[in-house]
Amino acid sequence: MKKVVGGVTVPKGFKAAGEHVGLKRKRKDLAILMSEVPATVAGVFTTNVVKGAPVVWSQKVATAGTPIKAVVINSGHANSCTGEEGYVNCVAMAEATAEALGCDPEHVCVASTGYIGVQLPIDKIKAGIPVVAGLLDNTEAMGTACAEAIRTTDVFTKEIAFELEIGGTTVMIGGMAKGSGMVHPNMATMLAFVTTDLNITQELLSKAMKESVSTTYNMISVDGDTSTNDMALVFANGLAGNELIESADDEGYKIFAHALHTVNTHLAKLVARDGEGATKFVEVSIVGSESREDAQKLAKCVVSSSLVKTAMFGEDANWGRIIAALGRGGVQFDPAKLSIWFASDGGQLPLMANGQPLIVEPADAQKVLSEKDIRIGIDLKSGGLSEATAWGCDLSYDYVRINGAYGK
Amino acid sequence: MKKVVGGVTVPKGFKAAGEHVGLKRKRKDLAILMSEVPATVAGVFTTNVVKGAPVVWSQKVATAGTPIKAVVINSGHANSCTGEEGYVNCVAMAEATAEALGCDPEHVCVASTGYIGVQLPIDKIKAGIPVVAGLLDNTEAMGTACAEAIRTTDVFTKEIAFELEIGGTTVMIGGMAKGSGMVHPNMATMLAFVTTDLNITQELLSKAMKESVSTTYNMISVDGDTSTNDMALVFANGLAGNELIESADDEGYKIFAHALHTVNTHLAKLVARDGEGATKFVEVSIVGSESREDAQKLAKCVVSSSLVKTAMFGEDANWGRIIAALGRGGVQFDPAKLSIWFASDGGQLPLMANGQPLIVEPADAQKVLSEKDIRIGIDLKSGGLSEATAWGCDLSYDYVRINGAYGK
Repeated sequence: MKKVVGGVTVPKGFKAAGEHVGLKRKRKDLAILMSEVPATVAGVFTTNVVKGAPVVWSQKVATAGTPIKAVVINSGHANSCTGEEGYVNCVAMAEATAEALGCDPEHVCVASTGYIGVQLPIDKIKAGIPVVAGLLDNTEAMGTACAEAIRTTDVFTKEIAFELEIGGTTVMIGGMAKGSGMVHPNMATMLAFVTTDLNITQELLSKAMKESVSTTYNMISVDGDTSTNDMALVFANGLAGNELIESADDEGYKIFAHALHTVNTHLAKLVARDGEGATKFVEVSIVGSESREDAQKLAKCVVSSSLVKTAMFGEDANWGRIIAALGRGGVQFDPAKLSIWFASDGGQLPLMANGQPLIVEPADAQKVLSEKDIRIGIDLKSGGLSEATAWGCDLSYDYVRINGAYGK
Repeated sequence: MKKVVGGVTVPKGFKAAGEHVGLKRKRKDLAILMSEVPATVAGVFTTNVVKGAPVVWSQKVATAGTPIKAVVINSGHANSCTGEEGYVNCVAMAEATAEALGCDPEHVCVASTGYIGVQLPIDKIKAGIPVVAGLLDNTEAMGTACAEAIRTTDVFTKEIAFELEIGGTTVMIGGMAKGSGMVHPNMATMLAFVTTDLNITQELLSKAMKESVSTTYNMISVDGDTSTNDMALVFANGLAGNELIESADDEGYKIFAHALHTVNTHLAKLVARDGEGATKFVEVSIVGSESREDAQKLAKCVVSSSLVKTAMFGEDANWGRIIAALGRGGVQFDPAKLSIWFASDGGQLPLMANGQPLIVEPADAQKVLSEKDIRIGIDLKSGGLSEATAWGCDLSYDYVRINGAYGK
């Protein structure tokens, strides 16, 4: 598996484009990603009880089992909590894209991200879709333009691609994503799109995606607020020409599942790193758990704690907050067995061993915590060997500024 | 029921004191609250899997069924995650207090609040206890000194007292509490202590306290982080001389339960109002729910959302964040039926009616949201009539400064 330059346009037969059509003030705000031939699709959608219209539509499209031609994505407005008019607008986006590409609307997924509760400026979008469709290309530059157009408060564009070899055939996989808070004024939602030219059944594509999502996109937190518009889609168009992968025991399936997981992990970590106002990337690893579910719950609880996040911002070795967050995670464990440590490029800093607090020298803490990437390690010593890792960021003044200072 | 000046020393036979003994730099840091005659006690303790040594000790003392003489409380250090040495120190606090008051250590509750994971400066505490015991008095001033000494990052002292009449007898009830984040550098934990001279069985005292706590102290959130040291205790010493209350059907029980609930509600709201960095008090009311449990879950989810809290700080009518928080609350409801509104002394501001977004004029929003006390109303229209209210505060730059800026 070899990392290559580019993103979603790297695999054969995928074209992308992104342009400014007036939904945001200046930046690109409308994107189309398409496959020249119909592609198998698998998706994972928000678990929020309140789902934006594009989630309702795309979930229907992605689970119909029919191959997909394209996904159209706008940023600036989430088209969520917009009632019947919102759903009609969402369908209109699929229809306009279908018309521009010469396919059925039922073969077009739709994603939106931005302000909740305001109707889409649908005329601008309908006028913009043919413009963006006219720009569609398989170049690296257009892949990047597409990844730019799906951004909201994201500071940087998130792309990755790999080259694999499966049964003697070269297969490409690429992806893009955006973060980085929940909604406007931050206008954000987690969206991820992965493309591959692999020839694989829908069932296995879906299996690989679902298994990967539970330990990648589902293990990041910027502010604990689940968007109504989260969506992660993978498209496989078969143009690599490999023999159809139709068994999970197939060596090719394993290679692909690993590559897909690597792409998802990379994009998920980039979303966490680019969390609103983030000055540090924080990784929380739980080991020695009785089950992966327990470890995941605890890792997410620690990485989401406002007090742990502000301590990371303050470069303060205040591990009592880590313990307090662990203790409210809904999982039983024995506090008398806990070991906890910080790690970074600045070194390792043991904080607690077997339930006994250790003496932490401020100078040692400063050396470890002044780094940009911080790892929090926690060994539950339950007797079990399960583990989990969650990713997040610190909580800074800028998070409050971005999310709260509009009226001030 | 008549509000009177003072707090825990208002009921007959209760004495209190608070003094600076060197645990904090300047402010009072050690407190004793005692009853001249043994008092019945009932308590509610943190649900955190990790419990501070004082929680372990006081839970044992309070559930033993024997009358209690006193509670000793220090601020500055939580004595949590301090291993065996921490528990020995906790017992030493009970012993020193028992010696000063002439009772058994098993009749002394202990509470600590402050930095987690550091051993208590037990020599200073042991030397301080006789000093504080020497100051014990039933004056309003000493009640306030006691309430001051349990503060950590609290901006103001939290006290309240009422006079009731039960079966022709005058009964007094008083309380004090402290907030206002989870741990150091904020050094905080929710502690509440209520006194009454009512004559009541332990069983009914406990019933009244438990029922009240679920809708008062358990319905506030400053930052979503549950402390390892939370504790709420009520003491009843019987000195009012009323006939023993031993049935929940007794009119006197109902009057007392209502008074206790009023005290708890008042103190809980004060803790929310004094949340770290708070510039606004936020009340979230859910109505039209199928069950109180559902309503409580949703109210707490909204009041705890970082994005809702930053919107309140920014005086931004961003109700999409309210909906997104509702949708991740673990409760099923129909988004198409939702009605949502803001209310304050500045007026009412409808945001969504029956699932349809309403147009909000910025000037109207500004008028309502520029007030200090904001109410968020949510009608689920499930067909059920259950409701719940949660209290919290906004998320400001000062929260980040208090909790994060130590290393900056």
